[in-house]
Amino acid sequence: MFALNDLVKSLPGGVPFVGPEELERERDSPFISRIGANENVFGPSNKAIKAMQLEASRVWRYGDPENHDLRHALARHLGVDADQVIVGEGIDGLLGYLARMTVGPNINVVTSLGAYPTFSYHVIGYGGHLMTVPYRDDHEDVDALIETAHRHDAALIYLANPDNPMGTFHDASVISKAINSVPENCLLALDEAYLECAPPNTALPLDPEDQRVIRLRTFSKAYGMAGARVGYAIAHRELIAAFNRVRNHFGIGRISQAGALAALADQTYVKETVVKIAAARKRISEIAHANGLTSIKSAANFVAIDCGHDGEFAQKVLASLVNQGVFVRMPFVIPQNRCIRITAGTVSDMLNFERALPKALQEARV
Amino acid sequence: MFALNDLVKSLPGGVPFVGPEELERERDSPFISRIGANENVFGPSNKAIKAMQLEASRVWRYGDPENHDLRHALARHLGVDADQVIVGEGIDGLLGYLARMTVGPNINVVTSLGAYPTFSYHVIGYGGHLMTVPYRDDHEDVDALIETAHRHDAALIYLANPDNPMGTFHDASVISKAINSVPENCLLALDEAYLECAPPNTALPLDPEDQRVIRLRTFSKAYGMAGARVGYAIAHRELIAAFNRVRNHFGIGRISQAGALAALADQTYVKETVVKIAAARKRISEIAHANGLTSIKSAANFVAIDCGHDGEFAQKVLASLVNQGVFVRMPFVIPQNRCIRITAGTVSDMLNFERALPKALQEARV
Repeated sequence: MFALNDLVKSLPGGVPFVGPEELERERDSPFISRIGANENVFGPSNKAIKAMQLEASRVWRYGDPENHDLRHALARHLGVDADQVIVGEGIDGLLGYLARMTVGPNINVVTSLGAYPTFSYHVIGYGGHLMTVPYRDDHEDVDALIETAHRHDAALIYLANPDNPMGTFHDASVISKAINSVPENCLLALDEAYLECAPPNTALPLDPEDQRVIRLRTFSKAYGMAGARVGYAIAHRELIAAFNRVRNHFGIGRISQAGALAALADQTYVKETVVKIAAARKRISEIAHANGLTSIKSAANFVAIDCGHDGEFAQKVLASLVNQGVFVRMPFVIPQNRCIRITAGTVSDMLNFERALPKALQEARV
Repeated sequence: MFALNDLVKSLPGGVPFVGPEELERERDSPFISRIGANENVFGPSNKAIKAMQLEASRVWRYGDPENHDLRHALARHLGVDADQVIVGEGIDGLLGYLARMTVGPNINVVTSLGAYPTFSYHVIGYGGHLMTVPYRDDHEDVDALIETAHRHDAALIYLANPDNPMGTFHDASVISKAINSVPENCLLALDEAYLECAPPNTALPLDPEDQRVIRLRTFSKAYGMAGARVGYAIAHRELIAAFNRVRNHFGIGRISQAGALAALADQTYVKETVVKIAAARKRISEIAHANGLTSIKSAANFVAIDCGHDGEFAQKVLASLVNQGVFVRMPFVIPQNRCIRITAGTVSDMLNFERALPKALQEARV
């Protein structure tokens, strides 16, 4: 019979996220609004959809394992060389490869307590030792992350800017200072999944000669293509080359590559989407305030609403929203879990949320 | 600066396969026939293409991380339970997870010399020790694989039935005997990527209660969807559950899931495709014989043609075919590398091959 190795035997069975489809199956009814997974409800450029539909008829061919055209287009768009870019199966897939390459038993890794669970999943999955730093005023505490990495000789630090689940961000100058303080033999994984939605001063210029940082980005958020699974990273060419030693070379499907290429070419559409996202963020805050709640200023495609009490209260609000058919999520550690997290939605989504929230608060207060 | 762990530092830089797109870029001209990667030139059911085109407009949503509908449809189709099936990013992706779960430093793994390189890539990638057994009369030597696994206390054995790159197959009774001889604490990875193309006596009935074997299958071959990256495996539910501890949960895109589901439902189309593949196989053999060559009887969607000399000669034949715009591949170890491997193509592909082969042989003989 099969024998799992000791590491895999020791791993927990839980998954990083329960998908909305699973929740729909549990409640035996579809959601009226899907504003919980930070998907981009505005979808991708029509040009990307058309490119994917065209490529569907060529799906008998494997996708190019080099992701050549997409990688080169990204390099041109970003002003870097193509060998400084890697394309992967979403940021999730790239974080998995990164953990595999840098982590192992007795290797320390630093992240914020309550930050992206899929990063932690991969670190633990490769036997790494996860050390967490509390948020500070709903922001990731950059100084403490760096300090902890120094103190414990960490090999990897995770920092998202803008942050998820709180949506807060740091100025590029803060990130620059952090990079300059990264310990020797350590790498900063800078997750910029939501960067396109953030104010201009969030983005530090790219410097792929810098061996201390890898920048992770995606077509899942502003580009509206979460279901295509295309992420990318920019880093020193030696680190990029290492991905080629471990990755699933044919991992990015043909349709996904074609869609991402077309989406990247339509920057006008991305800019229009970001405007819509900003308007929806504003609307979420207004709805919160109209219900006597406050919201956290967000630089991402979602807003954390402070429900004003503890995690148990927020959990009740969330449960009622979900019961009413509005799929939302919430942070899962104290004190961030006083909030619920609402993804920027369409006008109709925002109306559904606006209608459901008063009842949810009422039910939670009982 | 980043510090890779010792294992990843030690890995070779090579890739399992150079894709046809890369070869086209090198020769600066597209191929007239793409019959080298064992893709299915007949493509998927139109119902699958339409399902993917429809789903493209919903690509802003992540795919269901449980792959619920596809997994349940597969279970119904196969007559097993849904928790005995795992869906992954192609068989390649599943082999990667399998290596991760069972392999590690000082763990022995047995495969045939010249068998699927991506399996070896993953085993080496997780630090396993690869032991190889020569082919015997162009067949994988099942007895020797099992015997070697016993002798070296292997944790994992790889066997493809039908085999790639030779296309030969073993009767189900041989496979059954092999499973009954798998050592304790060892797992047989039975790669059945080409099973739908094989004679009925190839397929051993599924028995997912058997903890000694995992059966790997795919939508890339008979279903004609290589570019969608959907593979699946049938095994004991405890082994299937272990995949959930390591896999990239959102790894199968939404469009791919929808396409595979529709393709699975159209079994009539699959049967028609298999007939076309068999006809093309016959045609490849006829072309070989017309040129004074012999071919290996194949149960897959390709045929190995024995070029009658050594690997250097076959390499020259291959180079000329590629030069003439006909993309084919060849086995890479002695003595299988006396052959070139031709994928079942369309009528037009077969004509292109028929036209190019005499010149290729002539050039190789010079």
